[in-house]
Amino acid sequence: MGCEFWDSRALVFWCIVLSLIHVSLGSKVRHFQWEVECMYSSPDCLEHVVIGINGQFPGPTIRAKAGDTIVVELTNKLHTEGVAIHWHGIRQRGTPWADGTASISQCAINPGETFAYRFKVDRSGTYFYHGHYGMQRSAGLYGFLIVDEHGKRELPFHYDGEFDLLLSDWWHQSVHEQQVGLFSKPFRWVGEPQGNSIVHWLQKFSNNASVSQCKFSGNEQCAPQILQVHPNKIYRLRIASTTALASLNLAIGDHKMMVVEADGNYVQPFEVDDLDIYSGESYSVLLRTNQNTSSNYWISVGVRGREPKTPQGLTILNYIPTPASELPTSPPPVTPRWNDYDHSKAFTKRILAAKGSLQPPRTHDRRIILLNTQNKINGFTRCSINNISLTLPSTPYLGSIKFGLNNAFDQKRPPDNYDNSYDIMKPPVNPNSTHGNGVYTINFNTTVDVILQNANALAENVSEIHPWHFHGHDFWVLGYGEGIFREEDEQKFNLENPPLRNTAVIFPYGWTALRFVADNPGVWAFHCHIEPHLHMGMGVVFAEGVRRVGEIPRAALACGITGSF
Amino acid sequence: MGCEFWDSRALVFWCIVLSLIHVSLGSKVRHFQWEVECMYSSPDCLEHVVIGINGQFPGPTIRAKAGDTIVVELTNKLHTEGVAIHWHGIRQRGTPWADGTASISQCAINPGETFAYRFKVDRSGTYFYHGHYGMQRSAGLYGFLIVDEHGKRELPFHYDGEFDLLLSDWWHQSVHEQQVGLFSKPFRWVGEPQGNSIVHWLQKFSNNASVSQCKFSGNEQCAPQILQVHPNKIYRLRIASTTALASLNLAIGDHKMMVVEADGNYVQPFEVDDLDIYSGESYSVLLRTNQNTSSNYWISVGVRGREPKTPQGLTILNYIPTPASELPTSPPPVTPRWNDYDHSKAFTKRILAAKGSLQPPRTHDRRIILLNTQNKINGFTRCSINNISLTLPSTPYLGSIKFGLNNAFDQKRPPDNYDNSYDIMKPPVNPNSTHGNGVYTINFNTTVDVILQNANALAENVSEIHPWHFHGHDFWVLGYGEGIFREEDEQKFNLENPPLRNTAVIFPYGWTALRFVADNPGVWAFHCHIEPHLHMGMGVVFAEGVRRVGEIPRAALACGITGSF
Repeated sequence: MGCEFWDSRALVFWCIVLSLIHVSLGSKVRHFQWEVECMYSSPDCLEHVVIGINGQFPGPTIRAKAGDTIVVELTNKLHTEGVAIHWHGIRQRGTPWADGTASISQCAINPGETFAYRFKVDRSGTYFYHGHYGMQRSAGLYGFLIVDEHGKRELPFHYDGEFDLLLSDWWHQSVHEQQVGLFSKPFRWVGEPQGNSIVHWLQKFSNNASVSQCKFSGNEQCAPQILQVHPNKIYRLRIASTTALASLNLAIGDHKMMVVEADGNYVQPFEVDDLDIYSGESYSVLLRTNQNTSSNYWISVGVRGREPKTPQGLTILNYIPTPASELPTSPPPVTPRWNDYDHSKAFTKRILAAKGSLQPPRTHDRRIILLNTQNKINGFTRCSINNISLTLPSTPYLGSIKFGLNNAFDQKRPPDNYDNSYDIMKPPVNPNSTHGNGVYTINFNTTVDVILQNANALAENVSEIHPWHFHGHDFWVLGYGEGIFREEDEQKFNLENPPLRNTAVIFPYGWTALRFVADNPGVWAFHCHIEPHLHMGMGVVFAEGVRRVGEIPRAALACGITGSF
Repeated sequence: MGCEFWDSRALVFWCIVLSLIHVSLGSKVRHFQWEVECMYSSPDCLEHVVIGINGQFPGPTIRAKAGDTIVVELTNKLHTEGVAIHWHGIRQRGTPWADGTASISQCAINPGETFAYRFKVDRSGTYFYHGHYGMQRSAGLYGFLIVDEHGKRELPFHYDGEFDLLLSDWWHQSVHEQQVGLFSKPFRWVGEPQGNSIVHWLQKFSNNASVSQCKFSGNEQCAPQILQVHPNKIYRLRIASTTALASLNLAIGDHKMMVVEADGNYVQPFEVDDLDIYSGESYSVLLRTNQNTSSNYWISVGVRGREPKTPQGLTILNYIPTPASELPTSPPPVTPRWNDYDHSKAFTKRILAAKGSLQPPRTHDRRIILLNTQNKINGFTRCSINNISLTLPSTPYLGSIKFGLNNAFDQKRPPDNYDNSYDIMKPPVNPNSTHGNGVYTINFNTTVDVILQNANALAENVSEIHPWHFHGHDFWVLGYGEGIFREEDEQKFNLENPPLRNTAVIFPYGWTALRFVADNPGVWAFHCHIEPHLHMGMGVVFAEGVRRVGEIPRAALACGITGSF
């Protein structure tokens, strides 16, 4: 499989279009009415209670065109739980109150109440949405949000069909029980996801062919959906990961994939045998169906970074007219060993911005180094950043900062760095940390470097992967390094074609350098996208240009101190 | 056991004191700081997640004296769920916003927020508190609230020691899962409680003797607590039922019990071999330890009204100095068969007001007949009253009525009666019902009769027990009858010594007549105390004198329409 389907003329055209004119002609307002409620589902052939939308799990796919406005009127039909939905990858320019992060951009929507999310999807890309209150994402509150190019000519590559694959993981224990365990003494970790079926695939075939399902178990809800393809075509696979924990790898037997998009940004196309994907990331890959058309092929999904308790997830790439029920002649591709970090790093470093992409400023105005650690607070196991474990306040920051309230959260600013005597290769000498909810206040329109510094966890010789996701922005990923970040590492930063992403991983005992421009007025979460890690305090809050934020809808602030304002 | 420990002179004295002067001298303000959070507990020897208070399950006992003011500063430490606590049996005169019923008297307290319940306990009695949002009572959010007489001379009987027994039931399925089942099509009923240990006993010995525990299973959390007694003493057993479903019967081998209090009101003492108790009720019984002191005795708790799936719950009455571990020589008392309704009715009809108790007005100003049915709405199984299934609004009534909002709930008033062609002995001809949340507006200071009319459920030959609990009031129970209530039944009402209660049962295919005076400004829930029945819509809302309600704390109304007021 070569690069022949990559149309460089189209790419150039697309870049010009995007940079010169704002896509607005012919854009639509797309209305959705959603009811969020608990329901039964059997994602791994065992019945669980999940959080669904309009009776669907995963939630319905939102499909729009760049420049459209999305309006989701969300009614909370849960019995006693609030809810908030984050539109992952959408930057919410001008609508920071629609970011859907409880305690940060809005109050959780109370049971029985309706909140209108109204925001513009200003550019194409593969996005998704998910609950951002407690651990409701783990409970299954998620779905795809796919934004197509406004016009076909803007697309820098051609494809004949599309499949949309939303990857997730699953536990037999309810999210409520998981939460109690995480907040118990002794600590009870959620453990690795259970069952064989760690992957839900939302399947879409662009020409609306009705796709028959290969029923592996007789239970439709847990049968993996096959990818039914015509020979000698190009398919775009949109792959997003909303896993609570698992880092994954996807491989298709005897087929290569061409990576063309990451987190809504086109990348320099590159070919891979398998694709690493961390929670919070999304990719598009192009798949050419150029193999033996009288056979089917296995698609494998394996776990990375943590020793899995389950075998690879499997489904089938089914070449028409071969029956879907015919098992592939080749064995399933074996995804890399979970701890083959060299493989992960090699993949990650191949991701570079497409030609013509926006380049980063050459220098930064401020550098914030964020040390990721596992800690103890009063005997409870927590996660901390620069020794502060984030505990979200009951009054959303967006309101309390906008209105200058000084009693809604810690007024002490969290540190831009950590004690330089800290040995990241060892468990912490003093594991004790503190709770906090102070804010990083960023001067508007300045350029900030964030160095995510990994470290050893509480146990010896353990350092985990953390995929960090930034709300309201893309950042440039300037580089990755081993061990402790040092001043001189800046010399190695890639300022030429660093990829723009909204999620970036730090590898064990390593660092990752990011750069962003604080040009989006609002208050933005920046956190490890592993659901229990975030819930244990692994995140920070950035505020920028909050005085420029327009009128915040009352309903977004009807709780805490702003509730009786 | 005779009546010799009932001091009639003290009773007369007590009645005079209560009627002439308001107990206020020497009253205290009692402060409590509570954190409500989920925790592990093993009430039936299997670990469950329960809702606890300050790390305790059941919650801490509040003990006060009549006239005291209770202040509970409740911080919600649940992750995504609101919370509200109802002080069951406390009339909340002048403080209707402290009644703790979400959607009626207040907004649920959001996670991370603190709400101060401040109310007066104006008279002695055996009360309890419990969650009143969703089905949080079923999740274990409850505890005792015991109000002692202001002075010992007010007590109409003597006792040497006290045991406080809070009865509850338990399911292995989480409350969240139970809720999903109740709101699913096909309907999934919660089923009968599981496990042998359907009873939690909070034990208190008035002279603070340290009471050793008889460990039946080696697991302290689920070992029934023994009642350790001295021979030839009189013990007050305060027995309250916070069960989600089960009607219970308690019997003590070879001992009789003298019933002296029901729902905080003294009753004409009467002796029983066993005591029926329905969810929402409380009793005090006096127990004379006059049996063979060299033996222990079994205490049995059995289920009434529904065929149980578990054997009787058992614990031991342990006579000092007999070792607690010595099993009784007599077999456990056998509680009445679950469907021996004659036994239940005979017991219930023996409950009459103590001499000198407040008598009801001789006539009523309005009669409201409430037909209790099981129904279908769009294929979902619901409970209805006069064919309306109560669905609570997101804006609490107390605020919306006080401020005259006409868009917060159904403005159409629910009916005072039902179609008189309805055959209560048969399943409904048309099972379809509707959701609603209209309010019964009661003219202030008028006298209202409520006839609770039972009927056949959806299935043939099924009519269930419903214990109805009224907030903010006691009512007089004027009578019980079989079949349909008819005008002429009023002739048989007991207007001489009807008991004052806050909870009254309707028996299968029967009716129960209640009378109350609408003299407490506020909005008050009146509902079946069976948790899933209430959640399925078996309740009504009464509003009276709301214009007279004083300033409502802002925090009570910081949701729904009043939240952005």
